[in-house]
Amino acid sequence: MKDRSRITIIGLGLIGGSLGLALKAKGLDSLEIVGHDRDRAVEGRAAKLGAIDRGEHNLPRAVEQAQLVIIATPILAIREVMEQIAPYLPKGCVVTDTGSTKAQVMQWAEDLLPPNVHFVGGHPMAGKEKQGIEQAEAVLFDGSAYAVIPSLRADEAAVHSLLSIISLIGARPLFLDAAEHDRYVAAVSHLPLIVSASLFTLVRSSPGWPDLATLAASAFRDLTRLASGDPALARDICLTNRDAIVHWIDRLVGELHRYRELVVDDSEGLYQLFIQAQADRDRFLAEGPLAFAEADKPHDIGAGVASSLLGGAVVERMRQRGLSKQRLKGAFKGENEKDPGK
Amino acid sequence: MKDRSRITIIGLGLIGGSLGLALKAKGLDSLEIVGHDRDRAVEGRAAKLGAIDRGEHNLPRAVEQAQLVIIATPILAIREVMEQIAPYLPKGCVVTDTGSTKAQVMQWAEDLLPPNVHFVGGHPMAGKEKQGIEQAEAVLFDGSAYAVIPSLRADEAAVHSLLSIISLIGARPLFLDAAEHDRYVAAVSHLPLIVSASLFTLVRSSPGWPDLATLAASAFRDLTRLASGDPALARDICLTNRDAIVHWIDRLVGELHRYRELVVDDSEGLYQLFIQAQADRDRFLAEGPLAFAEADKPHDIGAGVASSLLGGAVVERMRQRGLSKQRLKGAFKGENEKDPGK
Repeated sequence: MKDRSRITIIGLGLIGGSLGLALKAKGLDSLEIVGHDRDRAVEGRAAKLGAIDRGEHNLPRAVEQAQLVIIATPILAIREVMEQIAPYLPKGCVVTDTGSTKAQVMQWAEDLLPPNVHFVGGHPMAGKEKQGIEQAEAVLFDGSAYAVIPSLRADEAAVHSLLSIISLIGARPLFLDAAEHDRYVAAVSHLPLIVSASLFTLVRSSPGWPDLATLAASAFRDLTRLASGDPALARDICLTNRDAIVHWIDRLVGELHRYRELVVDDSEGLYQLFIQAQADRDRFLAEGPLAFAEADKPHDIGAGVASSLLGGAVVERMRQRGLSKQRLKGAFKGENEKDPGK
Repeated sequence: MKDRSRITIIGLGLIGGSLGLALKAKGLDSLEIVGHDRDRAVEGRAAKLGAIDRGEHNLPRAVEQAQLVIIATPILAIREVMEQIAPYLPKGCVVTDTGSTKAQVMQWAEDLLPPNVHFVGGHPMAGKEKQGIEQAEAVLFDGSAYAVIPSLRADEAAVHSLLSIISLIGARPLFLDAAEHDRYVAAVSHLPLIVSASLFTLVRSSPGWPDLATLAASAFRDLTRLASGDPALARDICLTNRDAIVHWIDRLVGELHRYRELVVDDSEGLYQLFIQAQADRDRFLAEGPLAFAEADKPHDIGAGVASSLLGGAVVERMRQRGLSKQRLKGAFKGENEKDPGK
């Protein structure tokens, strides 16, 4: 990016605000961060908190001269924002988003954005159950994964722009295609949401609720935390990732049946299962996700993430292999395709 | 209790150790806390941490002259401890436990303890997924519920002894009968454990695990926290509370099917469900459990907990109404019986 690059963040909630704070925390004079929100007052609060250099409530003017536009609105609003900004995007501009599902967003980008801009889908794997600019934090993305889903139209430099941002905010890029991203996050993010909400609504609906509420300790409170999240986000996720969520609900029901059978007549089998789960989870927490990647698939994401942090090397590999979706995936994840969680 | 009352804690893990620390934090010179653990080294560590005044590795000697014996071992070990201490318990001694399930424990007490001691079952609704004396904290029980399940043999003074302990450690007593306790904790404690473990083992067993682990953020980590708990405790809970756990697994599966149907074809219904869940859970967290009790059943636990905090008043009510299990429940929970969560 050129001197005094302009980044425009559209949607100044928890994610958009935290992106702004994380970038501003770097103190880069060469970066100007313009912020837009549907609610003008939020632009003012974001500027006051130091998440943006200035607000611009006129959306066309907000994207003028931007090198990078980050759409950090609720998922369903991304479509409308794309429609509105499409005629005003500078030629060669890079557009990204932060939506929790990707297949639908990639399709909207394909349909709505002009061919002379570069769309690279993104999804920072960080959040809180509470929303809004007041919840934003510069360290929100620190050490977390950031899914990167380049569109067919995105060139190397466009992907590199997003990688720079990811590096600046302290996250780790993970290249995925849209379908695989959506299946994965259905397992580790959307299924937990459904489980959390259903556990809460089930117990809350019991006639014994007052006693149950009195007895409920940290186990119940922690397991139902996601039920306090944004209902509109939950709905949007379910609307745009229906098949994968249904798939994982069905698999969890199967797993619950397995536990049920062990509870009924195989306490030793259940004990072994709990022992293995404890060991696996403790390892997951202690060693971090990359330990698994390296241990289980040495040439897969371990290598992918490592080389994408090098930036230039990634772009070089992309160039060598071309940008077709399938080949791109191969470039970053090894050629060894596996059933991605289905 | 008399001057220099002796309390003996058997089992110096997270719960036994925290009870000791919480009682010692009160600085009561009149209280001597003797600790026993299967592992002698743990007795030494507990003494060093200030959770007990002294260790006594000879179990008969540990309970000699005790006014109150607290059995804080794993559930299945409670039976063996009762057998071992039964011949040595002073006449009139109060015995309690801290086990996570109660019907089985009450039966063991009935079968194994001599008729001249008073058994009052207990269950502090507090814990951590990590075990052991090193995890013990004086504030572990602060503000949490403490289920009290008097046996038919326990007299008023015995119940009052346990209420004093509960008051000293900062917890709030809740009177329940054993069957109702076990059904309730199956919902708010054992079902979350099964859900947490099954979510973890399901996702961990996917061929996509390395990518899934890389993408997993706080939602997955928090929802699977209980899978890192003590496997033996999990097994003991399932062994001694099988029917209630199976009942709640089946109900959760039904609730997951309800969500599944809404995901498939009723996003507006799903949105309304998420809105209601968010509002109910936020209220649960903000107002605390007693708000629900008072709002939903004014003469039920609200009144029960309030009067049990008064101690003397509770004992008076127990005396007036007699100690039959059913009438005791009526005394503390109002006569208005409800289906307790089934």
